[in-house]
Amino acid sequence: MKILAIRDGVYGVKSAISNAVIDFSQMTVSVVAVVTDVVREGKPVVGFAFNTNGRYAAQGLLRERFIKRIMGADPKEYRDPARDNLDPFALHRIAMRNEKPGGHGERSVAVALLDIAIWDAVAKIEGKPLCRLLAERFNGGKWDERVWVYAAGGYYYPGKGPEALRAELRSYLDRGYETCKIKIGGAPLAEDMARIEAALVEVGEGPRLAVDANARFDETEAMAYGRAMAPFNLAFFEEPVDPLDYALHAKLAEVYAPPLATGENLFSMPDARNLVRHGGFRPDRDWLQFDCTLSYGVTEYLRILDMLHPLGWSGRRVVPHGGHLLSLHLAAGLQLGGCEAYPDVFKPFSGFADNIPVQNGHVGLPENPGTGYETQSEVWPIMQEVAAG
Amino acid sequence: MKILAIRDGVYGVKSAISNAVIDFSQMTVSVVAVVTDVVREGKPVVGFAFNTNGRYAAQGLLRERFIKRIMGADPKEYRDPARDNLDPFALHRIAMRNEKPGGHGERSVAVALLDIAIWDAVAKIEGKPLCRLLAERFNGGKWDERVWVYAAGGYYYPGKGPEALRAELRSYLDRGYETCKIKIGGAPLAEDMARIEAALVEVGEGPRLAVDANARFDETEAMAYGRAMAPFNLAFFEEPVDPLDYALHAKLAEVYAPPLATGENLFSMPDARNLVRHGGFRPDRDWLQFDCTLSYGVTEYLRILDMLHPLGWSGRRVVPHGGHLLSLHLAAGLQLGGCEAYPDVFKPFSGFADNIPVQNGHVGLPENPGTGYETQSEVWPIMQEVAAG
Repeated sequence: MKILAIRDGVYGVKSAISNAVIDFSQMTVSVVAVVTDVVREGKPVVGFAFNTNGRYAAQGLLRERFIKRIMGADPKEYRDPARDNLDPFALHRIAMRNEKPGGHGERSVAVALLDIAIWDAVAKIEGKPLCRLLAERFNGGKWDERVWVYAAGGYYYPGKGPEALRAELRSYLDRGYETCKIKIGGAPLAEDMARIEAALVEVGEGPRLAVDANARFDETEAMAYGRAMAPFNLAFFEEPVDPLDYALHAKLAEVYAPPLATGENLFSMPDARNLVRHGGFRPDRDWLQFDCTLSYGVTEYLRILDMLHPLGWSGRRVVPHGGHLLSLHLAAGLQLGGCEAYPDVFKPFSGFADNIPVQNGHVGLPENPGTGYETQSEVWPIMQEVAAG
Repeated sequence: MKILAIRDGVYGVKSAISNAVIDFSQMTVSVVAVVTDVVREGKPVVGFAFNTNGRYAAQGLLRERFIKRIMGADPKEYRDPARDNLDPFALHRIAMRNEKPGGHGERSVAVALLDIAIWDAVAKIEGKPLCRLLAERFNGGKWDERVWVYAAGGYYYPGKGPEALRAELRSYLDRGYETCKIKIGGAPLAEDMARIEAALVEVGEGPRLAVDANARFDETEAMAYGRAMAPFNLAFFEEPVDPLDYALHAKLAEVYAPPLATGENLFSMPDARNLVRHGGFRPDRDWLQFDCTLSYGVTEYLRILDMLHPLGWSGRRVVPHGGHLLSLHLAAGLQLGGCEAYPDVFKPFSGFADNIPVQNGHVGLPENPGTGYETQSEVWPIMQEVAAG
């Protein structure tokens, strides 16, 4: 049992949108294929991964360091003899050889891509959907058949007014979503409040609407938005301030009573732990949104969950950033709180199985072994292209 | 006034050594040359930078994102009209366009390389040593002519016993150093204590010897080493534990009275601020060792110093990681506490001016405009090679 090749490609996303901080038209995503010598149903098992849009493709790092380490390892080092499978923990250690602690960014994407593709291959070798494999190994065999998802959208487009925003949200509701998220911070407060009020007309009540500031606010702005939004009791106020300013999160949590959310720009267990230790987040209401594809993969996500439980946090407070099948498998198999969804953005690197609709704000998972990307007609041909090299 | 080209090369270091965590023989360093259209003494001004050994070269990131952004900018965006020079702050903003907050690693090296090479060019255009330029712009015109340096060595080599360690330290003392640092954590505690005692025979007293655990200890080990070492009152106990485990630093600082030190694996102002806010470090004795070449460059170093002062920390408690001329210029021009030195390791990417000896534990700086790498016969030909493309 060995890894025969690791291939990667760099792709753009079909988005001409921007949030408060970045322009997505310049962004890139890595697609990784880990080709094994294991054969299932007459074909070699290939594990796949891509990273969530928002940071960048990791081609340089993949090729300079991480692919070489895995391809240079003796296959005996990463075989799981008890299960006759690959050992994803051993492969993670191999990838991280000669890496210093701290400084978790960029390499955390490269390692995540490899780790996630390896977990996809492991589930395929075992002949199970990834969520079931995770449930059996790490969650006492329990998993959720359907996962709560919310529609992340509400981006700023040139010339997009409250009517267009309402039409967008109505379209999400028509497609089965019940909770929607819109961007704030890209317009003056008064204009953003008008957008929130317009959005509430569609979604009906505060707890069905979340807002995302993409970490752009300083203390004064965060407090002003908090004061203005508190009466609406929104689903959550996401990334109010710099993701590493734990003390300011704690200050905001003291005065803003409705739920807060953050985590998509914290890329390791030690960073996640600092948020929980120092960020003043409230385990009874706030949301943790770590993104597996940006933070060293499934292996590190398990470490994050292991860290959370003794600190009084339920996995149900974790809702992964990144609206794609990998996040959905994590949410289902580890019984997290739900999963982000991108109904209209970041195609083809977003969405769930083509033929499984969202209903009552929840969505099911494909039964295919592994992550099931072959159920997504837009992304699967790209993965086949990368695997072919 | 414009940047004509940015070139980079990847080089190894002459080290077959290891510390508690990594094997340096696999490491790489980036060298960057920023070629301008400004002419001084008949030649185009070229700014240079390399990163401290210990993380890795940043070629992929430099070429994928950061060089492109600067070369794609309108030169009007980065001209400093008041001084008829490049504006390094504007160039830093350009490099960081479309980058999300948080996740400070790897890209922090790529941006640092560009930023440092730009500051080198700015000082050359102004015809001043970098330390004087920094002093005039940011330190009320005051700088230190000589900087305290300590000799970082004491690595583990196969078969190296206490006698060889003593000979190594004696050689540093013979070369004018008064304080030395050795590695710990790569051997059992009893063996490390024997190494410390052997080292103390040479350096004479505890405050002349520092130890570096390279973040390898868990809580039990850190406490055990702390208890064993406390009676020696060593100069500092560096990187006892994971650089992001601020709570554990605080716990150690409560029981270990002599100085602690850390910071080389914290790569941004927000990360540095978290150490100061949550790490329990003591402004009257502990040391902050942020590495400019790994953490977004001079521009971010200035932000870190600006953050420290209102929190009660003097710049004299900052001793940059990285034993090379760039750290020395920061220490002199911003009147920091001193600077690391690598008398015998990481050549050619270490050391100060060839013809300026260390005396009484202090070293002076070259008078050349910029950083003065032309005073280093080993690194200068490499820089010329990179600049030639």
